[in-house]
Amino acid sequence: MRKSPFLPNRSLKVAVLGASGAVGSEIIKILLERDFPVKELILLSSPRSSGQKISWKGEDLIIQEVNENCFSCVDLVFASAGGGISKKWLPQIQKSNAILIDNSSAFRMEPDVPLVVPEVNANDLFVHNGVIANPNCTTILLALVLSPLNKISKIKRVVVSTYQSVSGAGQLAMEELKYLTKEYLRGNPKDSKILPYSLAFNLFLHNSPMQENNYCEEEMKMINETRKILKLSNLKLSATCVRVPVLRAHSESVNIEFEEKIELSLARERLSNAEGVDFYEDYHSNRFPMPNDVMEKDNIAVGRIREDVSNPYALELWLCGDQIRKGAALNAVQIAERLIQKSYE
Amino acid sequence: MRKSPFLPNRSLKVAVLGASGAVGSEIIKILLERDFPVKELILLSSPRSSGQKISWKGEDLIIQEVNENCFSCVDLVFASAGGGISKKWLPQIQKSNAILIDNSSAFRMEPDVPLVVPEVNANDLFVHNGVIANPNCTTILLALVLSPLNKISKIKRVVVSTYQSVSGAGQLAMEELKYLTKEYLRGNPKDSKILPYSLAFNLFLHNSPMQENNYCEEEMKMINETRKILKLSNLKLSATCVRVPVLRAHSESVNIEFEEKIELSLARERLSNAEGVDFYEDYHSNRFPMPNDVMEKDNIAVGRIREDVSNPYALELWLCGDQIRKGAALNAVQIAERLIQKSYE
Repeated sequence: MRKSPFLPNRSLKVAVLGASGAVGSEIIKILLERDFPVKELILLSSPRSSGQKISWKGEDLIIQEVNENCFSCVDLVFASAGGGISKKWLPQIQKSNAILIDNSSAFRMEPDVPLVVPEVNANDLFVHNGVIANPNCTTILLALVLSPLNKISKIKRVVVSTYQSVSGAGQLAMEELKYLTKEYLRGNPKDSKILPYSLAFNLFLHNSPMQENNYCEEEMKMINETRKILKLSNLKLSATCVRVPVLRAHSESVNIEFEEKIELSLARERLSNAEGVDFYEDYHSNRFPMPNDVMEKDNIAVGRIREDVSNPYALELWLCGDQIRKGAALNAVQIAERLIQKSYE
Repeated sequence: MRKSPFLPNRSLKVAVLGASGAVGSEIIKILLERDFPVKELILLSSPRSSGQKISWKGEDLIIQEVNENCFSCVDLVFASAGGGISKKWLPQIQKSNAILIDNSSAFRMEPDVPLVVPEVNANDLFVHNGVIANPNCTTILLALVLSPLNKISKIKRVVVSTYQSVSGAGQLAMEELKYLTKEYLRGNPKDSKILPYSLAFNLFLHNSPMQENNYCEEEMKMINETRKILKLSNLKLSATCVRVPVLRAHSESVNIEFEEKIELSLARERLSNAEGVDFYEDYHSNRFPMPNDVMEKDNIAVGRIREDVSNPYALELWLCGDQIRKGAALNAVQIAERLIQKSYE
């Protein structure tokens, strides 16, 4: 166990591993926007992407190929280069006594690794071994609405269907969607190379590896990670994850069954006051959250909460959130912010 | 009550009301493809679309403005010009003793109007007053999978989230999606004029009128029509209907709870043998139905049926179907085919 769970309250030496990717480059943008205390920023990637320049506070930083000396004297590492890369470099990161905030699924379910959505379970951050896991994008968005509702009445079962943007598959998949759509509109439909099938005016069930129970990995992440974050180890949850031709915001259609019948007005009130959530719904003009509303926004958007006509103990709601931002990069930076030791601590 | 519920077994005089629309023009195409016994084809529309030419068996037919003399000696009318138009011309249609197969929601819930998916409840066709209703697109697709499963064990509750193509909003909405996507890709995003919001790399909850219970009309159609077709007047069903940037095929993520626990293998077998259904799923290569698979196809595609990890009495499955074809035009023509009196009747 580390001596202190905190980051020191001073300007920090920060490394971003996977700096050229969709999430890595968003982390850099957010560190700047939120004026995160960065003394020195080290941008790291695989050999393939090293050499690229990224602008940082008026100077051009060059992305370096990651090697074992990169982490010397580093305080904090944000990793979003895949689980294998995170695992490979963990010993070096730990040697420098840095904290790793990891965006991969490599460590999420390990008992001594906090899995945190700061608005939901920030207290879990302060017992760790140098690794904090950032949850999966769909899980983060879902946890933000389940947590305040679970405080009204314990959640018994959740059935969710997702509408996931292509950004979850990375920068190249986003470019591919635009390219394939353009070719389709030119009357020249082409096959995909990055994703298994073309998303041009098409959609498909999430292509993560299939598990023995016929759920895919993405769906099992939602189930297991939500249980860990909400500390509801027996929560019943079923997810169907679908990739749709949207660029960077995910949506989720969520059916939530509670132990008791809960008042719709109370659920609305709790979501309206929930941190990280913009709650809006206009039944009169039929205006509810859409992916376009939340693109590059910090908060997720939630609305259209209603009593389920098929079950008096259930509510249904709809949410949208920027996958790259709150679904990944922003949540990681928010974790880092909470780890900085305040003077009163 | 009409003297006979049947269409005479001879070449028929057929009128298509709404002939210039997405569904109307598909009906004409399907009548030709399936060699429906047409003696004379009358194409009708509003004044705005009259005058257009449509090719039929080598000759150009001109779409006429609908008037009260149009239906003289007509045997069969396919209407897909909206509920108001169907209601307006019903007296003239009935005067000529023609059968109206109506694609609008105007008559669907009337007790003396059969609401039919031929593979599911063709027997309901033979008691009517001259009007047969074609169900809503999402309902037709759903009924095709619920019906064979309900024969294994009675269905208790269904929770469905839809991924609906833009064709459900008509031809102009399809053109708009292509236009707005092209403009977006040119870096020049524009506002929508046909649909309430742009669907270019975006999606939104279905924009049909909102009901008092906070379900929209489209969702209530799924609930009420499914109950009528399956003769399960107390079926619990909740639907969340979503428009996605797909051109002409709908998808649905369906969670089905049964009275008893049913064997997955038996459910697979029943769906594999179900009429109107192509059942395929390849867990090894992660290949399941997609909208692109079913475009301009008669059968719907179903797959990824699995035991719900959150409820041992529930199964989950995924389906896709061409909205214009089986979701509307094909189903209407199939109804007409079944109405033709066979010599043995």
